[in-house]
Amino acid sequence: MNYKMIGRFTAQTLFVEMLFMIPALLISLFSREIAAVTGFLYTIALLALVTGLLWLPCRKAPRIMGAREGLACVSISWIVMSLLGCLPFVFSGAIPHYIDALFEIISGFTTTGSSVLARPEDLPNGILYWRSFSHWLGGMGVLVFLLALSPGDGKGSGFTMHLLRAESPGPNVGKLVPKMRKTATILYLIYIVLTVLNILFLLAGGMSLLDAVCTAFGTAGTGGFGTRSDSLAGFSPYLQYVTAVFMLLFGINFSCYYLLLLRQFRNVFKDEELRLYLLIVAASIGMIVVNLGSTYLTVEETFRHAFFQVSSIITTTGFATTDFDLWPSFSKTILMGLMVIGACAGSTGGGIKVARLLLIFKSLRRNIRQVLHPKKVQVVRSNGQVVDEQILTNTNAYLAAYVIIFVVSILLVSLDNFSPTTNITAVLACFNNIGPGLEAVGPTCNFSGFSDFSKIILSLDMLAGRLEIFPVLVLLSRSTWRHR
Amino acid sequence: MNYKMIGRFTAQTLFVEMLFMIPALLISLFSREIAAVTGFLYTIALLALVTGLLWLPCRKAPRIMGAREGLACVSISWIVMSLLGCLPFVFSGAIPHYIDALFEIISGFTTTGSSVLARPEDLPNGILYWRSFSHWLGGMGVLVFLLALSPGDGKGSGFTMHLLRAESPGPNVGKLVPKMRKTATILYLIYIVLTVLNILFLLAGGMSLLDAVCTAFGTAGTGGFGTRSDSLAGFSPYLQYVTAVFMLLFGINFSCYYLLLLRQFRNVFKDEELRLYLLIVAASIGMIVVNLGSTYLTVEETFRHAFFQVSSIITTTGFATTDFDLWPSFSKTILMGLMVIGACAGSTGGGIKVARLLLIFKSLRRNIRQVLHPKKVQVVRSNGQVVDEQILTNTNAYLAAYVIIFVVSILLVSLDNFSPTTNITAVLACFNNIGPGLEAVGPTCNFSGFSDFSKIILSLDMLAGRLEIFPVLVLLSRSTWRHR
Repeated sequence: MNYKMIGRFTAQTLFVEMLFMIPALLISLFSREIAAVTGFLYTIALLALVTGLLWLPCRKAPRIMGAREGLACVSISWIVMSLLGCLPFVFSGAIPHYIDALFEIISGFTTTGSSVLARPEDLPNGILYWRSFSHWLGGMGVLVFLLALSPGDGKGSGFTMHLLRAESPGPNVGKLVPKMRKTATILYLIYIVLTVLNILFLLAGGMSLLDAVCTAFGTAGTGGFGTRSDSLAGFSPYLQYVTAVFMLLFGINFSCYYLLLLRQFRNVFKDEELRLYLLIVAASIGMIVVNLGSTYLTVEETFRHAFFQVSSIITTTGFATTDFDLWPSFSKTILMGLMVIGACAGSTGGGIKVARLLLIFKSLRRNIRQVLHPKKVQVVRSNGQVVDEQILTNTNAYLAAYVIIFVVSILLVSLDNFSPTTNITAVLACFNNIGPGLEAVGPTCNFSGFSDFSKIILSLDMLAGRLEIFPVLVLLSRSTWRHR
Repeated sequence: MNYKMIGRFTAQTLFVEMLFMIPALLISLFSREIAAVTGFLYTIALLALVTGLLWLPCRKAPRIMGAREGLACVSISWIVMSLLGCLPFVFSGAIPHYIDALFEIISGFTTTGSSVLARPEDLPNGILYWRSFSHWLGGMGVLVFLLALSPGDGKGSGFTMHLLRAESPGPNVGKLVPKMRKTATILYLIYIVLTVLNILFLLAGGMSLLDAVCTAFGTAGTGGFGTRSDSLAGFSPYLQYVTAVFMLLFGINFSCYYLLLLRQFRNVFKDEELRLYLLIVAASIGMIVVNLGSTYLTVEETFRHAFFQVSSIITTTGFATTDFDLWPSFSKTILMGLMVIGACAGSTGGGIKVARLLLIFKSLRRNIRQVLHPKKVQVVRSNGQVVDEQILTNTNAYLAAYVIIFVVSILLVSLDNFSPTTNITAVLACFNNIGPGLEAVGPTCNFSGFSDFSKIILSLDMLAGRLEIFPVLVLLSRSTWRHR
């Protein structure tokens, strides 16, 4: 393990974080929020100091790295970015307890959206902006951003496939174009254009600028931090529909948008993952509408709440327009299922991902066929292409790691003595980067009731979920820390 | 698919079932229970008729079968055995509703122990005996029994490895001796000796003969049907300790006992699965004792309940000495974890099995190492031996199928609108062949509140759990029903 490599990377990440904190500082200045201004100033100064201290000794580290360094770099830079990124909350007094602030910012960067705050409307504007912006930065990934900005073709800059692989969600990395720097730039351009469109649609519905920007950040990163304690319940049906549609859009693999730009409509339409994703959404909405019956006054309202909640949960955003904890058991169970499935690979959403679900199903079917016809060689295909066996093995290993982390987390969190449903859905909500769960962590409640210990466990779950487990597991492996 | 092969197999299974119903008939006769006597007589007559009708056209079916036929034979014979085996309950009026009776006997044969009855003490003796005996027969497997009785070395008799594989729990079939018939005989001899020992220990504690026999059947098959509505809570601490110890013993891989008979003590002691099993049991008891604190009056009582419940749940038996639904959340979560893990492979217990857990862990560790060092060839070892890649693939496919069935079952059962905890633990309890869950299916409650639809889903879960998923999935595969 080359420690200087990690140091250089972390310095670069913190530098980006520092730059992005400046708009939040300006908003605080314009809003004349003294506490927030000093909070951001102190943090920016500290970030500059740490960046410098890391950069100087590590700047000459080798630029080509192996899988081990790549995975460790990603985890460590995310952790350090969170450890420092929560400081504005603490210094400004908005969230005075450090563990709470850390939980909040990790929830932000990992696009989870679980909060310890009962009333976000009480936050100063600058803090509210920074909290929501963390979703936007975490959604597409800070390292992908660095990659897009890096000089050269991405090879000489020290960024390798390993980094992109570790931070991009999904079983396989979609290289849109051969050069990785260009891929990263295209991804961020699509991301920015969609976000701006989302803000414009929200403004057209009469939202204030800060509300619109924060809501769009939460939607784009599939995060779910709202600007109000009732999430989106208090906004107009138009704004709810806009948000529901944009959540769905941000849950789609971004390579689909690239294909649309290239006018390859047929390839988009034939994409197996996209079709299954839309099918799951439509089927879930249908079943919930039937199950809800006459819970709401009109069919339109029933459909709107079902559409919004399905879209919010499968994309792992976590916005709410209604207290779905009061829905009948069947509807709640559908939502719990969607929590696990998650959005498409290559989107900003979390969860197991639809593409991985497809591979798990297909590899299971292959396995049954292999038992029935032991002499035939069976392959798994995806969009007509044979899937590499290593990807199948990795996908199954991912599922195994997912189940193990899930069970162990529930066990540790249960020490706080909440109900089993609370514990299970709290872990589901954090591990899959969703936000709200059921019962004590339902859409009208928050995570402040958990002990510091549980908050740390849930924070680790959020990180493991966002980075898709392996980078975090690599940190725990002894051989990572062995010198060559 | 050769349908005559299935016909012959089912006929043989039903013949064995008919023979084993005769003791229950005799007990009913001695106890002068008119309704039960007629119930058993009608059923025995029907079994004889169906056996004959199946045997005559199918008796000359080929005796060597492939994997497809083997797996299908096992599932179908278990289903037919259950469809007819529940008739004494219906005919005697003990459980007049057919779906309830079917649920009860499938719960028996699959050694689940989930019941629709509030007061088993109201049952006639013969019915009570038959209900508990179904555990004993299902525990070691009716086809293993047939195999032990079959003439010749097991080759000419048409029994193949596929059958043993489908009915014996675990990732790999332990052939104790090269000849399969002898393996089956040894397994049943160990089973009978342990059961008789259990009965003697219970009689020594003052239990009545019928109670002792029924409790021992429930223990041996790791089933859990009790003779009283409070399970074992009303019996003396001595009887509770005896049962706890025997449950643990029946949860151990039977090949360990064979090695003990061969005086290969070192191999038994070094067995990785056995060591992990005992470690999990000891750690769980320790954590629960600490977590319970002063819930009970004495330390002895706390230890006894913790020991009994851990032993009962990890072996998937399901007996109870106390209402663990009232325990703190952490202890309940430990029990839910044990529900999933289950007992050792090659025992009568259910669940994922400790051996499979070991393989899942090891294959995950291998996968992480492979990512870190892509050029090294990594193998997985078990007890020092390299594990075949096909077994690893099957184990991961098993986990995938397990998770999928688990999620889909919870979704379907949630239509009854019970709480999420009830739904999740009901499916856990049935799918892992345990018996009681939490809340509405807790140890003091029963499954009678579910709809017929949910009872059928849960029955299928029990069958899938007992036969370890694949034989049941094979029935659902189109290619199984295609003519060659």
